[in-house]
Amino acid sequence: MPDLRRDPIVGRWVIISTERSARPHDFVPVQTTRPLAATLCPFCPGQERLTPKEIMAYRPQPVEPNNPNWTVRVVPNKFPALQIEGNLDRQGHGLYDRMNGIGAHEVIIETPNHTESLADMPTKRIEDVLWAYRDRMIDLKNDVRFRYILIFKNHGASAGATLEHSHSQLIALPIIPTSMFEEIDGCRAHYEQKERCIYCDIIRQDLADGDRIVAENPEFLCVTPYAPRFPFEMWILPKRHAGHFEESQKTQFEFLAPILSEALRRMDKVLAKPSYNFILHSSPLHEKTGDFYHWHIEIIPKLTQVAGFEWGTGFYINPVAPEESAKFLREAGI
Amino acid sequence: MPDLRRDPIVGRWVIISTERSARPHDFVPVQTTRPLAATLCPFCPGQERLTPKEIMAYRPQPVEPNNPNWTVRVVPNKFPALQIEGNLDRQGHGLYDRMNGIGAHEVIIETPNHTESLADMPTKRIEDVLWAYRDRMIDLKNDVRFRYILIFKNHGASAGATLEHSHSQLIALPIIPTSMFEEIDGCRAHYEQKERCIYCDIIRQDLADGDRIVAENPEFLCVTPYAPRFPFEMWILPKRHAGHFEESQKTQFEFLAPILSEALRRMDKVLAKPSYNFILHSSPLHEKTGDFYHWHIEIIPKLTQVAGFEWGTGFYINPVAPEESAKFLREAGI
Repeated sequence: MPDLRRDPIVGRWVIISTERSARPHDFVPVQTTRPLAATLCPFCPGQERLTPKEIMAYRPQPVEPNNPNWTVRVVPNKFPALQIEGNLDRQGHGLYDRMNGIGAHEVIIETPNHTESLADMPTKRIEDVLWAYRDRMIDLKNDVRFRYILIFKNHGASAGATLEHSHSQLIALPIIPTSMFEEIDGCRAHYEQKERCIYCDIIRQDLADGDRIVAENPEFLCVTPYAPRFPFEMWILPKRHAGHFEESQKTQFEFLAPILSEALRRMDKVLAKPSYNFILHSSPLHEKTGDFYHWHIEIIPKLTQVAGFEWGTGFYINPVAPEESAKFLREAGI
Repeated sequence: MPDLRRDPIVGRWVIISTERSARPHDFVPVQTTRPLAATLCPFCPGQERLTPKEIMAYRPQPVEPNNPNWTVRVVPNKFPALQIEGNLDRQGHGLYDRMNGIGAHEVIIETPNHTESLADMPTKRIEDVLWAYRDRMIDLKNDVRFRYILIFKNHGASAGATLEHSHSQLIALPIIPTSMFEEIDGCRAHYEQKERCIYCDIIRQDLADGDRIVAENPEFLCVTPYAPRFPFEMWILPKRHAGHFEESQKTQFEFLAPILSEALRRMDKVLAKPSYNFILHSSPLHEKTGDFYHWHIEIIPKLTQVAGFEWGTGFYINPVAPEESAKFLREAGI
């Protein structure tokens, strides 16, 4: 059973997941994407038996589960960081707090095509991926053990992807991750002072300033944030205030898919198809944060080596001003 | 002039240092250590003209500055993230806050020997490196613009080192980095509740538990923390409460040098000389935090690729329990 442990000083929870790897020599080489031939890829159609049993899939024609002919397929992670069965069993040990590492860890296979990336896909099919995120969130929200659902994508070896076939991941957690907690606290403080959502204020100011805009449509804005940790970091925000991604309307996804696609294609053009991560930041499942928290997606190309300085301090040196990176991205011919 | 910018949501300051790199194609390859021949290394004796003018150096015999025959040498970083001259010029721009990127960015060259690592050095010479840290902190503390001094080491390419010759870095900042602020807040909360330092409590519990101890001497304890973010993460803590590294007595350094050396050698043995970072966590320069903050060193071997999940959330999956890694480290024959 994995362990969830809390740092007593800063309150940060970590997963100690010893099932995944144990001996020091496992760490000697830094992890890289396994260059699997498509015929061996567990995410390719026809290889459904190589994954745990599917949780859901979208298929043009209904067939039995775990067969081909799907367009998006969701399966449990074969090497989950957390375990779905069991209770939390919260315990104190002197200063320290722990609980069982209970959670869901799922993989969203975005395409049946081994070589297709999310940026290459038609926007209608990106919409389907967004629907899959939403459907899984709605389902997992019914499990009272969970307080937060993380959805993220690692694209490319240096962003942490271990399989080449395009996929995202979902982790449902019995705690709220520290950084989300800090964002929510910041939003709450602003709301208490101003009675406005701070992300709504950011959208207004960034639209007025203009020089950090990467892309825009009637429902969404893509900007480089004013104080980015990383070069070419981008945020995609719904223009209308909304705390919960999973409560989005159909028209929202019809506008989110093309702006996500555009952001990725602009990034691919300017930075020659970099490795990247994106992370969906949405409200906790049951806390009343909807008035002041504003869901969004953060996209982080993996370009610079993060050094000791950044690790130890949460304080980042970014060699590119966001106004500069926005200009490169905005003006890229795609 | 570099820019210091504050994220309006979480309050995190970042350095936008556009002097260092500007065009997107600069980012296409991930940075690696330049395999410089020792004859071209700016940190080697005889090449002193290749660095900016030295700030201080330890020499067995006094000679003119910027000559060989030093054992430790401190120079300004040739590509500083911050600029030493100027005033802060704090400004607001709507929601956003900025100030000039004023700060010191120095390099501590730990050895005249190009191929020697800190772990290989005799402890007397490691003591000298610690004295150099202290002397620079004492000097920079006189500059009222600075609120925090970061000292850290990137060892190896995948930990962010750009030059092979063993060195540490110092950055003096006009702000307190977010993570330090969070640690201090956590310590203050514990102190207000218990009237005890939380790190002192950790030392007592870890000594009693025993299974997270890596090394120990009369003045210092090296442990793997209870909730480590990274496999084989280690903390070195002074057993006697002390908030400020730079106020250490001579005997403290006589005990710190050997335990730092031992920790690095145990890590090198178990993990086959990994890349690593260490970061000195000490009190802010002028805040009254000495009663409840406890300085320490955090050592982080660079083993696992940090994925999107960790970046976006500050929530880490660690595949090794600290009790396990402490056992491997403690039992390594060195």
